[in-house]
Order: sequence, then C-alpha cells, then structure tokens
Amino acid sequence: MKEFASITQPKGFLAAGISCGLKKSGRKDLALIFSQSPAQACGLFTANKVKAAPLLVSIAHLKNNQAQAVIINSANANCYTGKQGFIDAEKMASLTAETLGLNNNDVLVASTGIIAKPLAMEKIIPGIKKLCLNVSKKGGQDAAYAIQTTDKCLKQALNRLKISGKTVTIGAMAKGAGMIFPNLKSFNHATMLAFITTDAKISVAALKKALEFSVDDSFNAITVDGCMSTNDSVLILANNQAQNKIIEYNSNDFFTFRNALNEICKALAKKIVMDAEGATKFIQIKIVGAKNARLARQAGFSIANSALFKTACFGENRNLGRIISALGSIGISLDEKKTKIKLSPLDKRNINLDVFLGQGKASSIVYTCDFSPEYVKINAGYS
Amino acid sequence: MKEFASITQPKGFLAAGISCGLKKSGRKDLALIFSQSPAQACGLFTANKVKAAPLLVSIAHLKNNQAQAVIINSANANCYTGKQGFIDAEKMASLTAETLGLNNNDVLVASTGIIAKPLAMEKIIPGIKKLCLNVSKKGGQDAAYAIQTTDKCLKQALNRLKISGKTVTIGAMAKGAGMIFPNLKSFNHATMLAFITTDAKISVAALKKALEFSVDDSFNAITVDGCMSTNDSVLILANNQAQNKIIEYNSNDFFTFRNALNEICKALAKKIVMDAEGATKFIQIKIVGAKNARLARQAGFSIANSALFKTACFGENRNLGRIISALGSIGISLDEKKTKIKLSPLDKRNINLDVFLGQGKASSIVYTCDFSPEYVKINAGYS
Repeated sequence: MKEFASITQPKGFLAAGISCGLKKSGRKDLALIFSQSPAQACGLFTANKVKAAPLLVSIAHLKNNQAQAVIINSANANCYTGKQGFIDAEKMASLTAETLGLNNNDVLVASTGIIAKPLAMEKIIPGIKKLCLNVSKKGGQDAAYAIQTTDKCLKQALNRLKISGKTVTIGAMAKGAGMIFPNLKSFNHATMLAFITTDAKISVAALKKALEFSVDDSFNAITVDGCMSTNDSVLILANNQAQNKIIEYNSNDFFTFRNALNEICKALAKKIVMDAEGATKFIQIKIVGAKNARLARQAGFSIANSALFKTACFGENRNLGRIISALGSIGISLDEKKTKIKLSPLDKRNINLDVFLGQGKASSIVYTCDFSPEYVKINAGYS
Repeated sequence: MKEFASITQPKGFLAAGISCGLKKSGRKDLALIFSQSPAQACGLFTANKVKAAPLLVSIAHLKNNQAQAVIINSANANCYTGKQGFIDAEKMASLTAETLGLNNNDVLVASTGIIAKPLAMEKIIPGIKKLCLNVSKKGGQDAAYAIQTTDKCLKQALNRLKISGKTVTIGAMAKGAGMIFPNLKSFNHATMLAFITTDAKISVAALKKALEFSVDDSFNAITVDGCMSTNDSVLILANNQAQNKIIEYNSNDFFTFRNALNEICKALAKKIVMDAEGATKFIQIKIVGAKNARLARQAGFSIANSALFKTACFGENRNLGRIISALGSIGISLDEKKTKIKLSPLDKRNINLDVFLGQGKASSIVYTCDFSPEYVKINAGYS
C-alpha cells in the first residue's frame, strides 16, 4: 500500500467532489468518478429487500458490464422514495452522461444518507453540471470527502502490481460509519459504499470473481451495529489503460490481481470499523474449529452483533459469559472441555477474540467495534 | 388484577427470600417457593444451546410433571461451570429437599447472574437451610426481591378466576432486565425468570398447553437487547388446593384458566420491558398484513432489535428509514403504495408503531424499549 491513495491514481481516472447544498453543514456532498475511456464494470449490492433507487439504476446500467462514470451523493439515500426516487436517480445518471458526453447506461449511481426523504434535485442538478466541469487527477481526495456521512476520517486505499511487465494500479475509496452490517449479495450491512478503480485490462468474468472473492472476507466480514442498509454498494471499474495482457479468470495473473484487490478491500473494511460511530475499540473475532463455514461466520457475527459483548468491550469488562451466550443463541452447543476462548487484554485499542470450538475444520474472521454511549448519542440525534 | 400480588396468594404456597452473601451489596439473593402439597408442574426453558446447569436439573426433575418447591439464586447463573456446576445445582435441589422433607426431584432450580463463575456453595448451603426455615405467606414479596439482578422494580402479578364455583388464584413473579430476548422453547431472550403458582386443580396436559399459549405472546414477544440468555426459565406449579373440578385440556374451564394465565404473563412481560436496563420508553410494535405468522413476528423483532431504531426512539428522532431498512433486512419487500407505517409521537413514555404490510393476513405484536447511553453504561460495568 502506498501512502498517497486515491481513486484517481490508476491511469485514465479523474474525479471531483463538491458541495451542492445537501449537507446543512456546507461540507462536500456530491462526487464523481470518471474514466477517460470505457471500462469493464461490475458491482455488488445490499441483500436488503428494500433497495434504494440508485442501486436499481446501477444494476440496470451494469447489464452490459460497462461503465465510464459514477455519480454519488451523500446526505440522502434516495430510498423508499417511490417512483419519483427512481426518476431522480435516472436523472442523476442521464445528466452526468449528457454533460460528459456518455451513454446514460455508462453512468452508475450511488447514494447514502437519510431514508424516505425526496432528493433535493434543485440542488443536485446544478451540482452535477458543476461537478462534471471539475473532474481532475487531484479530485480523488475531494470525492472521498464528498461521499462521507458520519465518517470522521478519509477511507482510501491503493495497490500496485505487475501484470505481464506492466504496472497495474488499483485505487479505492469507501465510507461507513453506521448501519454497517453489509451482506453484499453478496452484501448486507451499513450504508457502506466502496468505489474501486483500476487501469487493469481484465475480462468481465475475472473482474466479477475477483470482486466477489475480495468482498467476502472484507466488507461482508464487518459489522458495526448489525443493521443492514438499503444502499450498500461496491462498484469496480477497470479501464484497460495499464495495457497489460488481459487478465483471464483462473490465470496466474488473476490470482495476483485478486489478492491485490483483496488487500484493498480488507484495508478499507477495517478502516470502516475503526472509524465506526462511537467506536473506541477495533475487535477481531476469529472462530476456529466450526462444523462448517456458514456456522463459523454466523458464530463470529453472533458475538460481533451482541450488544452485551460490545458494551463489555467498551467498559473493558472481561465477561466471557456474553460470548458463550451469543454462541449458544445461534444453536451452537459448547463442550466445555473442547471449547477454548482467548480474549486479549481489553484496555487496548485493538482487541482479539479467538474462539476454538473443536467441532470441525471451518474457520472465519469477522471485524467489529465496541458499543459506546457515543454511538447511542450519534444515532439518537441523526436525522 | 388485584393490588397485592405475590406467588403466595394461591392457597398452600409459602415462600422466602434472604441474603446469603452472593450479592456484594448485601441485597437478597436466595429465594424459595414451597407448596404445602405436591403440585403439577411444568416449565419452558431457553432455546439457547448453552443451557445453564440449573435448567438441566429442572428439566430432569420435571419428567414426572410434579414438583413441590423451587430454589432460586441470583447474582450467579451457574452456567458454563462444567461438571461442578451440575453438581452444585443438584446439591441446591437435594439440600432443599432434605430440609423440607421432599424427594430431590420435587425441587426445581433456577439461577440468574454472571456466567462462567463457580457458585459460592459455601454461602448457598447455609443460606438454603436458613431459607427453608423461613418460608411463610408473607415471604412472597421477599422472594420477588431475591430473584432480581439489575431490576429496579418488583415484578409480580395476580389473577383470580372462578372454576366450578371455586375461586382459583394465580400468582406470579418475574425478573428482567437485560440479556432479554427470550425464546422459550419455546423461550429465548434475557435472563428472564418467571415463576407462577396456582391452587388450580388442572391436568398436566392442560397446564402445559396453557403455559405454552400464554408464553408465546408475552415472554416470547419481548426483547430488550436481542441477546438470548442461557438461563431463561418459566416454571408453573399447580397444587390443587382450590378444590375446583379438574381443568381438562380444551374444556371451557381450560380457556378461562388459559386466559387468566395469559393476562398474568403479559403483565409480567410488559413489566420486564418497562424496567429494562436503561429504558426510557416502552414500545409496542404491531405488524399487520404479513404473509404468515412467522414473518409477522420476525418483522416485529427485526425492528425491535434494531440498534438504530431503538436509539432513534431514545432521541425522539422520527426516522422511518430505520424501520424500512429493518424490514428489508429480513427479506420483506415493501410496496410503497400498500405499506403504511404509523408511529405515535416519540416524546411520550409509551410509543406505538403500527406497520401495515398489505401482503397477507398474519399479524403479530412485540414489545421492546429504547436504547439509551444508560444501557451501555450499565452493561459496560456489570460483571
């Protein structure tokens, strides 16, 4: 990972982030990612049955697995906003397309923020026009600011790798920080948004497989509050500009690329947890010796989503009973002779919990944070 | 419901509650319920796969559906305490039996408190001896105090009914107040303990059916924090002393009795929620028009267990998006034209949420409370 990370590091990507007035604070709230040439694209979206309008638009526009821009607003999720919400999301895409000279379906849309409120299109429309005029290499950072809601710090990541002698770059940005329990369909938690750009030349099949693999043990392995958002989206665009030999599924290059992408996703997922609403601790929960992978993951999340475990971590209150109870609650019987629970000292910023079930060979790692009075205060007031 | 409610109101029941030193505060921590004659008995226990030793003992002792006493300690759940925990729970029963002149298997055991700590039997043994000498009609209230952990108020209920010209009395006591999401196996949340006494003459089959029915829409319909305890137990003893004509399953008298029992269970369940750790609001969530009963209940609990919904209620922050998101997260699609969400004003102690899904005929009511910084503080420090 390099120090200067942004979505505009890969060749041919420009970006911008501005304030169009959606956030009362005057902070940036509208972002654009633009590839100077058409890119292979795919996405993973929340498994929530209530999907916000921008997701439906992006899913439709991704049918040809091609995109060239992503328009994103924060402060309003454009979810449960009826037919008008869908019209507004389409308008965001078409206006971006028109201004940049693209086809409508080459623009993807993402939104995050309050649910069930109409989008203030009178602010977004002039905003998009301004945004499209402002795309630049430097704009990556601005875009990363503009997608934030309750985030306290920027979440960006960068990776470079060699494919057939060419340098391939992957850049990414993400936002958290509450309603985080993605299950990206494979995706379910927070409004977790992540945008990944790469100049790799890669087949659509390889890109999809690499993304699914990378998301599974990163964004899909985190939870802040167990609340699955209606807007979670991860989008990746690959614009071929590195001029590498095309990366095909299951080739050696594929695994090199997939691992680099996986590193990025893990880095961002951890940043989301570290910066979660009210969090004072970063907690890694490792389940070893489960009967199967599904149970291993479920066991990890049962602990990670337990309000009692999380408050105990906040209070640096060593309470193994709450771990035991969380495991039993999802139907795992514990053999007191075989089960081992190792919990690192709680007075640190990073906590490791290792649970050895001794019931099989499956394992899983999930990441979460503690539960503080601050989380309650943030969410009691957020609207 | 009469004003003076206690488990010793039904004929032939005595009780006691003392401090044996388990609670550092010196508050009462050991309770006994004693029926002067053998009683039909049955129980419902947590669906948590990790069941505390006292539950295993009670389940074994209930095989003959008869009991005459219940010994209960608070401050320690005697859970995940290995073989010694089981020996200790058996010892609590046998010592009670010996002192009262009963068979071991006519004594049931319940515990609540910290998990994975050995029971201080050196305090419990002399405590039980003292307790058995102290049973009285007046002791009902003391017992209700002795079963408390973080409860702030007593939870008792009473109901009287006429069966074949005889007055039948049902008395009950319960404790909450965190780790509450019973699913009494039918039972799963908190450590929720409830003890019900009645002088009714009733067949075992009728008693079981009445209890299952009554628990389903009371204790099984509440959640405080979504954490299922290892110790949840509901026990009922019916000692025949009202001398009514025996209540048989599905008779008219059965329904009269069942409804009276149901009233008691609902009253106690609501008291548990009202007195939940850190709660400032009592929230009733009604789901109407679900496809089936399972989905209706699941929808209610998805909202009731949403940290975001609960913190919004605490903050009196009208955020329908969190309700929508919670429904979608369990796989319910919402038709914005058919779905109606009615949320009463949030600045009141009692909040009503009615969700009309318009997808079928099933409905369900669940009860919960808000999520406050105080809940976090209580559970950050509790050990």
